[in-house]
Amino acid sequence: FLRGKLTVRDVRFPTSLEQHGSDAMVGTKLISAHTDPDYSVAYVVIETDQGMQGYGLTFTVGRGTEIVVCAVEALSALVVGKSLEEIVSDFRGFYRLLTSDGQMRWIGPEKGVIQLATAAVLNAVWDLWARSEGKPLWKLLVDMDPRKLISCIDFRYITDALTEEEALDILVKAQTGKQQRVDQMLKEGYPAYTTSCAWLGYSDQLLKQLCTDALNDGWTKFKVKVGADLKDDIRRCSLIRQMIGPHNTLMIDANQRWDVGEAITWVTRLAEYKPLWIEEPTSPDDILGHAAISKCHNRVMFKQFLQASALQFVQIDSCRLGSVNENLAVLLMAHKFKVPVCPHAGGVGLCELVQHLILFDYISVSASLDNRMCEFVDHLHQHFRSPVVIQNAHYMPPKDPGYSCEMLESSVQTHQYPQGQVWKKLQ
Amino acid sequence: FLRGKLTVRDVRFPTSLEQHGSDAMVGTKLISAHTDPDYSVAYVVIETDQGMQGYGLTFTVGRGTEIVVCAVEALSALVVGKSLEEIVSDFRGFYRLLTSDGQMRWIGPEKGVIQLATAAVLNAVWDLWARSEGKPLWKLLVDMDPRKLISCIDFRYITDALTEEEALDILVKAQTGKQQRVDQMLKEGYPAYTTSCAWLGYSDQLLKQLCTDALNDGWTKFKVKVGADLKDDIRRCSLIRQMIGPHNTLMIDANQRWDVGEAITWVTRLAEYKPLWIEEPTSPDDILGHAAISKCHNRVMFKQFLQASALQFVQIDSCRLGSVNENLAVLLMAHKFKVPVCPHAGGVGLCELVQHLILFDYISVSASLDNRMCEFVDHLHQHFRSPVVIQNAHYMPPKDPGYSCEMLESSVQTHQYPQGQVWKKLQ
Repeated sequence: FLRGKLTVRDVRFPTSLEQHGSDAMVGTKLISAHTDPDYSVAYVVIETDQGMQGYGLTFTVGRGTEIVVCAVEALSALVVGKSLEEIVSDFRGFYRLLTSDGQMRWIGPEKGVIQLATAAVLNAVWDLWARSEGKPLWKLLVDMDPRKLISCIDFRYITDALTEEEALDILVKAQTGKQQRVDQMLKEGYPAYTTSCAWLGYSDQLLKQLCTDALNDGWTKFKVKVGADLKDDIRRCSLIRQMIGPHNTLMIDANQRWDVGEAITWVTRLAEYKPLWIEEPTSPDDILGHAAISKCHNRVMFKQFLQASALQFVQIDSCRLGSVNENLAVLLMAHKFKVPVCPHAGGVGLCELVQHLILFDYISVSASLDNRMCEFVDHLHQHFRSPVVIQNAHYMPPKDPGYSCEMLESSVQTHQYPQGQVWKKLQ
Repeated sequence: FLRGKLTVRDVRFPTSLEQHGSDAMVGTKLISAHTDPDYSVAYVVIETDQGMQGYGLTFTVGRGTEIVVCAVEALSALVVGKSLEEIVSDFRGFYRLLTSDGQMRWIGPEKGVIQLATAAVLNAVWDLWARSEGKPLWKLLVDMDPRKLISCIDFRYITDALTEEEALDILVKAQTGKQQRVDQMLKEGYPAYTTSCAWLGYSDQLLKQLCTDALNDGWTKFKVKVGADLKDDIRRCSLIRQMIGPHNTLMIDANQRWDVGEAITWVTRLAEYKPLWIEEPTSPDDILGHAAISKCHNRVMFKQFLQASALQFVQIDSCRLGSVNENLAVLLMAHKFKVPVCPHAGGVGLCELVQHLILFDYISVSASLDNRMCEFVDHLHQHFRSPVVIQNAHYMPPKDPGYSCEMLESSVQTHQYPQGQVWKKLQ
């Protein structure tokens, strides 16, 4: 089936150039740990010998994408030559094969470049699986027998927090009311929050304009980037809180800027604006540094954040974790530890991907929308064949078969790095 | 100065083929997470425009080395064009530049492929620095002014465990008796333990022979690999304990084989052989899983293991951490938390490198040898220009200028992957 081929391309958008532009929607003035990002992807296409295609990607921010591409090429030897049936009939084994290859495991394990590459490859496999069933990925997951779902998860290193039996039990219990939740989602969509209003360094006027527009569009939850300059943070948080009123929700994101002590001082000062959460106050590795919400790189890190009660929200990521497989493990652990999941999105394609996972979470795991919402950033969606649909600040469930990460071939070609037109012009 | 060039090569030794050989010294029957390893390095040479060279490497185990090479190439843009003086006059800033490049940070940060590549590059810079001073690296460190040493360390994310002032205080206090410890090391060397006797699957006869030889050579501390088969582990631990007697030291290493529950069961069963430590019982990311000794990938992970009292020995690594700079941070934290450091070595060149760090630790930080020893594995040293010298189970301080990781050019060329002679023959 996959006896066809796997190709991977380095696709970059020159978003760093647009920092001075007037288009506030293209991630302008992104700051933090990642200054001047060129939003990018390692873009994977797998093709079966019958001509069927699966699309996958992982998100990066420019330089270094070629390293992830190199890692995908190294992993491709483990994929090509296997049939889809072979893979999904023992998806746990296949996941283990990719993440625990006797030699490549050394350069991870399950973190950094090799984990991002694993996500890109497996995202393509999941896309192919969903397409072969003619369903959007979320529906493939929702319709899947709980035992089959469990068989996709590698429980290695997490059994002290969640056993297979407990996981199965969670899924079986959530069968009740499932169809009702499917119907609800199709009608209302999944609640979203916006990060597009308050990047660092925006003027008062721009902040006001963006907030007014967002409120008019139905947004009620707003995330503000902080951490570079306390005075500027106070100005923006104060203004946003004033604009959105006391009943809408405000969150802040420090993008790993602080040491633990700094974080405490800073956050204490911003507390009066009543942020619901503080995102990544310090190193993403610092479990004991007590992040309130954090993007982790694997299920073992999430497990400990949960065990240590060190986060109050779980922020899954469709590309930093090992694809759907590892996200399933984290969704189930979060449910057991009674912590709401609020996915990370934005970048290139992260919104397209993660909406499937959070729909599954609501319909088949948590059955709750309390304190739950999915990040939305309004850029680069135009490069996708099935871009996200937002209605009244909600993600509307995708209808096209697959995992929504097929890009327009013309976008891929013009943005390929360094040979695409867009980059040639910049040389 | 470095306005010259940086080259990086993929050098692999086909050690996986020798599993069935009779030479027990070439890492035969290595097991665990890393089955069938081909011991490898990404080998870096930097050359200044005045023709001076610095050598650095990071250790890998075969497939995936090309990914690390790709990452070194990406980092090289940040190195080439800078003078050595420029780098070492603000080494902290240079370290931050490499580990926190606005775009490349995303694919780490400070972990996996990009961290291994950072180590290879910085190891070469340290080698160059030591050569330019005409000293072996350990002596460069020992002679360095404490304030200058501190200025090489990035304290980001660890100030809640160790401040700059505390670090300085540790170094200043340890100035007392320093020359005496230098003399002692030059005379006696630093205590080592051997991992060469008890790989998985060795027959009783081979175990006995290796143990007898090692005891005759003066070894008193032995590490046994465990974790694949409990019955086999019991056989080997029992035999080794019998051979070495009750007063010599035995350690066990599970190479991340177990879940937390499994680890407890297994270790309970092996407790009667009185292992001093249990190495990597579970995921290296699992702080709360309570490893007794663990190889971590950065100072933030080590910090938490120490804060959580989750390890009783600190196992530094010359290539998994961000070179000398980050190892300095970990040595100082370990001292503050009163936990002995017992470095990880073996592989290719890890013994050659890490001996410098542990000598520095004794002379300038801990001033203690209690419960301290450095791993030794007797293979692949013949490929180095200044291989380790072991006398009576002690590492004798290197005398040649540099960081001891210059390889023989002939070895590099014949083992380059895939074009070297050794690999061409195997095709």
